[in-house]
Amino acid sequence: MSDLLTFGPVAPGAALAWAPLPRGAVRLDPTGDLGAWQERNALTTLPHAIAQLEESGTLANLRRARDRTPTPFRGYHFADSDVYKTCEAVAWEIGRSGTRAFDGFLDDVVALLRAVQRPDGYLSSWTQGSGLDGGAVVEPFSDPRWGHELYCFGHLIQAGVALDRAAGRDDLLGVARATADLLVRRRAERGVTDLDGHPEIETALVELFRHTGDRAYLDLAGEMVAARGHGTLGPDRLGPHYFQDHAPVADSLEATGHAVRQLYLNAGVEDVLAEGAGPESWADAMTAQWRTAHDQKMYVTGAMGSRHFDESFGDAYELPPDRAYAETCASIADLQWTYRMLLREPRREHGDAIERALHNSVRSAVSTSGTEFFYSNPLHLREGHREEENAPSRRTPWYHCACCPPNIARLVASLDTYVATASADELAVHLLAAGEIDVPAHLGSGTLTIQTAYPADGALALRLAGTLRPGATVAVRVPGWAEGVEADDDGFRRFDDAALARGVTITLRMDVVARHAHPRVDAVRGCVALTRGPLVYCVEQADVVGHSVEDVRLALDAAFEVLPGLAPSGLPALRTRASAVVVDVAEPYPAQVPVERREPVELTAVPYADWGNRAPGPMRVWVWVPVG
Amino acid sequence: MSDLLTFGPVAPGAALAWAPLPRGAVRLDPTGDLGAWQERNALTTLPHAIAQLEESGTLANLRRARDRTPTPFRGYHFADSDVYKTCEAVAWEIGRSGTRAFDGFLDDVVALLRAVQRPDGYLSSWTQGSGLDGGAVVEPFSDPRWGHELYCFGHLIQAGVALDRAAGRDDLLGVARATADLLVRRRAERGVTDLDGHPEIETALVELFRHTGDRAYLDLAGEMVAARGHGTLGPDRLGPHYFQDHAPVADSLEATGHAVRQLYLNAGVEDVLAEGAGPESWADAMTAQWRTAHDQKMYVTGAMGSRHFDESFGDAYELPPDRAYAETCASIADLQWTYRMLLREPRREHGDAIERALHNSVRSAVSTSGTEFFYSNPLHLREGHREEENAPSRRTPWYHCACCPPNIARLVASLDTYVATASADELAVHLLAAGEIDVPAHLGSGTLTIQTAYPADGALALRLAGTLRPGATVAVRVPGWAEGVEADDDGFRRFDDAALARGVTITLRMDVVARHAHPRVDAVRGCVALTRGPLVYCVEQADVVGHSVEDVRLALDAAFEVLPGLAPSGLPALRTRASAVVVDVAEPYPAQVPVERREPVELTAVPYADWGNRAPGPMRVWVWVPVG
Repeated sequence: MSDLLTFGPVAPGAALAWAPLPRGAVRLDPTGDLGAWQERNALTTLPHAIAQLEESGTLANLRRARDRTPTPFRGYHFADSDVYKTCEAVAWEIGRSGTRAFDGFLDDVVALLRAVQRPDGYLSSWTQGSGLDGGAVVEPFSDPRWGHELYCFGHLIQAGVALDRAAGRDDLLGVARATADLLVRRRAERGVTDLDGHPEIETALVELFRHTGDRAYLDLAGEMVAARGHGTLGPDRLGPHYFQDHAPVADSLEATGHAVRQLYLNAGVEDVLAEGAGPESWADAMTAQWRTAHDQKMYVTGAMGSRHFDESFGDAYELPPDRAYAETCASIADLQWTYRMLLREPRREHGDAIERALHNSVRSAVSTSGTEFFYSNPLHLREGHREEENAPSRRTPWYHCACCPPNIARLVASLDTYVATASADELAVHLLAAGEIDVPAHLGSGTLTIQTAYPADGALALRLAGTLRPGATVAVRVPGWAEGVEADDDGFRRFDDAALARGVTITLRMDVVARHAHPRVDAVRGCVALTRGPLVYCVEQADVVGHSVEDVRLALDAAFEVLPGLAPSGLPALRTRASAVVVDVAEPYPAQVPVERREPVELTAVPYADWGNRAPGPMRVWVWVPVG
Repeated sequence: MSDLLTFGPVAPGAALAWAPLPRGAVRLDPTGDLGAWQERNALTTLPHAIAQLEESGTLANLRRARDRTPTPFRGYHFADSDVYKTCEAVAWEIGRSGTRAFDGFLDDVVALLRAVQRPDGYLSSWTQGSGLDGGAVVEPFSDPRWGHELYCFGHLIQAGVALDRAAGRDDLLGVARATADLLVRRRAERGVTDLDGHPEIETALVELFRHTGDRAYLDLAGEMVAARGHGTLGPDRLGPHYFQDHAPVADSLEATGHAVRQLYLNAGVEDVLAEGAGPESWADAMTAQWRTAHDQKMYVTGAMGSRHFDESFGDAYELPPDRAYAETCASIADLQWTYRMLLREPRREHGDAIERALHNSVRSAVSTSGTEFFYSNPLHLREGHREEENAPSRRTPWYHCACCPPNIARLVASLDTYVATASADELAVHLLAAGEIDVPAHLGSGTLTIQTAYPADGALALRLAGTLRPGATVAVRVPGWAEGVEADDDGFRRFDDAALARGVTITLRMDVVARHAHPRVDAVRGCVALTRGPLVYCVEQADVVGHSVEDVRLALDAAFEVLPGLAPSGLPALRTRASAVVVDVAEPYPAQVPVERREPVELTAVPYADWGNRAPGPMRVWVWVPVG
């Protein structure tokens, strides 16, 4: 267990050749792009999240359950999970920076949770507080589809593990483990496992197994995965696929239903597989599903889950940019799943997908101030858009369902642990970021330094102060978007001891590329999305003078000027000459192609993640390129 | 009152120059297109609907409330309205054909409603039956936003009026009037009117006023319209615009929120205006909203309300064909509103819109058998689509929320009353259909016969057996889609006595026209929808051999062969040479335009309304026309 204390959210899987590096082995440069995000997360997002737990009544729900106060419950019944995710975020930040600023918060929360937790381990401010205000009493475990109790336990377990690993503090772990032990006992008594409509606990239980060595948790997670897809959760108006209960995992070749549920489940499946506790058929299905999900159901920003109705994946290629639900948590969940895929089978595409989501859909979800958030991340805001909480024109400080903000916080606080992995022979760098990486002892000694302004610039300078043992290599992911850069067949460029000691430079050409979509993505037919390196760009109304951003037309051969530092985030903006049209359509569905009169316009594009940081207004990622 | 007994769903408004014709004045030819639909409705849809009221538990809910049975309530809490709509449909069918087949059903229903109705007039199987199965007791009028009690009263009132008008039977009217009188008394006692989250009762109350002459009902309707838009209904997670409570009617220039609610409300506003009981500002707002709704928020099929999430209108030009919610009831509600607009201001566009909805979105909602229905009417079914109740691949016999099937039944049973209107000087024909129209006495005498195979064919032969008084004319709508047909500036072609006595022929050229959308309708950019006359066509997988319908490409100059009688409905099919593509896309968002290899394919298109009557499979209304 002492070894495991050194890891981040994911400890090595027994059945895998590849492993995460220990926590602290990667130190992101606080002046670099990702490192600065971690700093901002610590300084602004975390204190904000803690304040919002108070403001939103989330902590009050727990106090109410403790004190038996006849006040109303506030917010969603699964809001305890927001407390747990915030605790997990705080834990990783303590591990990263050694801050003591949050100790008081943690002391209060742990004491509160201990006071609410029943002797048998059960803990839920919702069911335990039900009936206090005269409403109906809700029995524990009475609503597996919608009750979210195991979902909350899962986040509690992840927080408990995090705090023990990162701060050497096991009080929250004790609370968490008691909930897991309750589920183990219930399994023994009932002969079948509990199952939750919202997967999350599966991956948490595997991590608890890794952390404690108690195989009962792994067995429970494996049983939960195996139970899924047999109608176990019973009928529901949203259909069994909403809960991924429509088909066994081995047959789930298509991502479907509620996106976050599907993607958290998949992370759990990978974790069970990583411990050698799942059949090959699960791995095959996951590999196939990963491919179709990322080829047919992923937005260019890395976002997933297009439908508002049930927060679900749409059909293949159903990717409307305007009504994109594109929940922040779905991108984070996909990142977690994909990272586990990468541990099982380290391929460039996995790192590419993580990079795409991180720099676009996840990053768009938080303001440059670090204190305002998107829950839904559309790729097009129409002129005259009527704003709603989940169809926003601007980020808001918190949400009625506040799953996303603390999810961002916990991800960013642990971002360093996603940068690199190691096998018996190799250190592999997946996320390109300025920072230092300690060489794992079995591969050599010393520190690899990466200097770069990435993603503003494509030059990466690597230098090793230390040595690699003979035969060991450092592999650096060469992104799929990078043209003409030397790489091995698997998309990595490899360096040996001598080269790294001298210092090597990788230069990724940061051309502005107009990207197309598959022709079946009807909603963006004939349009392009501008990208530069890993960044997707968008056009905001604030940058188009005299015309609606809806009426901008781009030429396929347009030349772009790169304007360093000019976007709200400090990343480069792009500028080009384009045209805007005045459209004359006399009837809704004319027999002739609508006549467009074109006028020249100067077009400035900013990184998609930067949108909505200035005056709210229409925005487009996909811009029409008229042909002919 | 005796005069009013002769009208259909809408009696003349006191403030209007134009009026509906009396019920029975229009007799649709049972071998013609619309007349055959009325026959099918009577023979298959009505008996089916009555059987489904039993099957679904809707009638059982009322018996349960009568008998105080401790069984569970079934279906939605506003399902009483399905009983009322079915009664209304039966009433119009009795009026049309004189059938006695439904007398027993009506006797039973009226007796049942009388037994359930409280002495004060209140009637709801939901609230009156609440608590019977141990659940919570729901107090009457306790949930104005979601309770739907006034919505149900509205349908009851319309059914009561219909049965009195069409069958001279006032027992249901008595039940209905008691609910209206309860609301009038509550208004007097409370000093403010009740208001319902779901508009419907407004138009019903105006009709009850017309039918009874009791002005209290009109006043109540006017107050309900005036109360809307002041936050009267209180806060809700879906926002006040969901209930059209976000802005006063005079300021509601944009159709928004729940589509059926918006459109029923608008019909009510027009009815109040028609009685001279609303300000000019309401009329101005309605005229403006009608324009934007039909220019910016209407599908080419006439459907409205694109969003599944809250069954609502989207933003302007947010009209995805695949995730089109396009509820059947929204099309029917738009038809009802537009018909009232046409009475206030008879313009070609109004008749065009009614025709568009009737022949496409409404007609698609019922199978050729008359016994299966769509609730949602998408314009694109993707390959690999996962079917859900409201995202269907096929019509179903009934729905958990069964508002649409009986709504179709009552519309079709009264379709003859929407065909023509009259002013002091003119008889105006709006719907082009084979049948006979009695000349109103103030305009002359005799019968106008219209012979046509419309919409299969564009030739209409009109002959008057009788006379028009001097100066009186017959005006026939020349559809906006008809090219090169003589018409006055308002889109009508006018005939005098002499011409009609000789017989006149109007020939509408039924060219196949590839229609375009406004460029802001991103989801269909670069595509065309094939139309012929008023019919929108679609391509079904069943008619494309060897390729996916998703991969079909059409040439803008394609020539079409018209195949009479070949569609499932017996309407013409279209055939042309097109191409299908094999797409090679190696990555999700390539830097190059995806390469398409084209292969010739024979393409057959059938009327949109006919889709899904054969084997379920992918379908597209909008087909890509590659340029360049």
